Formats: sequence, C-alpha cells, structure tokens
Amino acid sequence: MKAVIPYKKASAKSRLSPVLTREEREEFVELMLNQVIDTLKEAGIGTIDILSPSTYGLENMTKANVLLDKSDLNEALNRYLKQAEEPVIIVMADLPLLSSKHVKEIISTKKDVCIVPGKGGGTNSLFIKNPSRYTVRYYGSSFLTHCSIAEETGQSIEVYDSLFAGTDIDEPEDLVELLIHGSGAAKDYISKKFRLEMSRGRVRLVYI
Amino acid sequence: MKAVIPYKKASAKSRLSPVLTREEREEFVELMLNQVIDTLKEAGIGTIDILSPSTYGLENMTKANVLLDKSDLNEALNRYLKQAEEPVIIVMADLPLLSSKHVKEIISTKKDVCIVPGKGGGTNSLFIKNPSRYTVRYYGSSFLTHCSIAEETGQSIEVYDSLFAGTDIDEPEDLVELLIHGSGAAKDYISKKFRLEMSRGRVRLVYI
Repeated sequence: MKAVIPYKKASAKSRLSPVLTREEREEFVELMLNQVIDTLKEAGIGTIDILSPSTYGLENMTKANVLLDKSDLNEALNRYLKQAEEPVIIVMADLPLLSSKHVKEIISTKKDVCIVPGKGGGTNSLFIKNPSRYTVRYYGSSFLTHCSIAEETGQSIEVYDSLFAGTDIDEPEDLVELLIHGSGAAKDYISKKFRLEMSRGRVRLVYI
Repeated sequence: MKAVIPYKKASAKSRLSPVLTREEREEFVELMLNQVIDTLKEAGIGTIDILSPSTYGLENMTKANVLLDKSDLNEALNRYLKQAEEPVIIVMADLPLLSSKHVKEIISTKKDVCIVPGKGGGTNSLFIKNPSRYTVRYYGSSFLTHCSIAEETGQSIEVYDSLFAGTDIDEPEDLVELLIHGSGAAKDYISKKFRLEMSRGRVRLVYI
C-alpha cells in the first residue's frame, strides 16, 4: 500500500489570508506537509507520493516522492488511482492533528473504503483497497459524494470518527484547534503569531 | 453511575439567532435534549437528571428527572457533583450526533476522568469517576481548564477523540454537520428549513 498527498504551495490556503500573509501561508503549509509525511512514516507507510501541479517548494523534498500533474485535483488523483495497483490512502496535507495511531486504524479497516470526514462535509482522508475501482470527487460535500461512489460501485465503506483527524486547517478558526490540541512545528509556528482569547462561548484567536 | 444534562430552554442558542427565531430555537433545543436522553438510555444509563434553572419546557418531562437550580451553570454543576456519591457523566444537551456507542466507550474509560472536546476548546461531555474530588469550569477554553483540573487534583484523564461526539450545535455552520451526519428528530427539524449548498470549499447552509 502507499500514500498520496495532494499539495500546492503557491498561494496556498487563501481562506487564511485574513490572518496570514501569502508568504506566511506558504511557510505554514510546508510545515504541515512535513508533519503529515512524518506521521505516515511513523505509521509504517513505505511509499509516500506528493502529487503537486508544480515543483515549487518541493525542490529539496527527500522524505517523499514528488509526482507532477498539472491537472485539476480530481483528474490528477483519479489518474493516480487508476495506475496504483495497490491499496492507496489519500491524505490531505493540512492535517497537523493527524497521528500515526489514526493512520494505522484507518488502514486496518475491514471495509473496502475508509473515509475520514472533515468539518463542513469534506473528506480529510480516504483509504481505498481497490483504487482502480474507485474515483474521487473532491470539493463541495465530498464526504457524501465519496460515500455514494462507494455504494454505487458496490464497495463497503467505514466512516472513521475522529475530531483530530477530522480537523483540516482551512480557516482562521481552525487555527484555534491547532493551538489547543496540536504539537510540532505547525503548532509552534502559529503559537508564535497568535494566542487564544478566552471568553464566553468559543475561544477566539488574537494576534500576539 | 448517573448522567446529568444541563439545560435551559428559554431563549436558548442565541448564536443560532441569525438563522432561527426564538420560538424555533426553543423547539429545536427540546428535540436535541430528547435525543440526548434517548441516547443515554440506549447506552444503559439508568438515572438521568436534567439540571435546569427553570421548569420552562420541562413541565411534561417523564423520561428524566428534573432538578431545579437557579445558579450559574458551574455553581449548579459543582453542587450536583459534590452530592453525587457515584460516577457522573455530564452531557451537554446540544449533541444530536452523540451515539450510545460513544457513551458506552466514554464511561468505559480506564482513567479517572474522560473528556470529550468540542470545537473551539469546549467540553461536550465529561465523565468523572470521583465527582466529589472534581470541580467543573465551563465557558472559555473549558477543555484545557478541565484537563488542568484533573492534573492538579491528581486524577488521570482520557481525551475521547470523536468528530460526532465533538459536534455541539451552537452556530449556523454546526447545522451543516447535523444535516450531513445526523439522524432523528433534530435533523428532520433542520432539514425542513434548510438545504445544503455545494460549492468549492466547505458546504454552506441555505434556506429552503
């Protein structure tokens, strides 16, 4: 089995632009990518491919293979799956709370497919035992779409229920989760720039 | 062991006021409360107490005991814990994605305390084996506070990692999770009023 991480550094994470500059966002996604790679390695996954439309920011990547594909995310991933010939776990690059324990549990599923829902109907990770029989369709409510695709193609599916694996970092409020529950370089980067402000209701992020 | 659910119907869930009227919010919290009670019963919990500052909306409650306490949430809960004399699980009333499987796992913890983090640093559920030795402090980043309280009083703590048990319904975007992952009366109520709009990025809520 192998892992694939879709990744794009250039102008990444535009929804974080209210709180981080472009340069900061690019630094931050690189830290998150490295953390996800380390997590996959810790979980014992031997082959890790980064699927990117550009080599930008990946020039010195030695921890994982870099595969270039300029197509749209879905097209590139579906081409990858078609050629995979072994089980594949697709892991998003913005999951700094994902642990090797999560990964081990996800790939131990007894079902054909294991999906990790993110907030707002997203798909944070997707483990596919027979990748040539499955196609992905990210964007929108991809969680529901990916469940339907499994059903339509007669593949059983497990929903992996985890708050931490389910936390993708897209919007400023997601950084709160990283500060509260995170560790490692991505958290350190954010905790140098922001602190949590406590008030009634949920915790908010303020600049240091 | 027993369960306690803090609950207030009057003008509940003010942060949902951009999308639901006061009357709707009051109807909705009642549906969520009933779902949480059913979940606890399904998990085999015999004694279920509702802790409320008022009997409003609880006049005909037969599925659980109603305890009145007009004090602040923390004061009322700490008084409850002091008198409990057996393990207590505190469960918030706004957790329509909580299942009996979650509850069974939470109360099976080998640690002294088991905490279920919600989004934004909240505490969605808290299982306490020795309630007279523990005090709660909700509001703000109660997750971190509750972890510290366990540590300071020499009690071990487990963090229960679940996206669904971790989904409390406070803000309009939380209703998206209910529509995608939920079932039962609370989901039905919301799905009569809203539908999901798919677009790039996360799914959004729109009026029907």
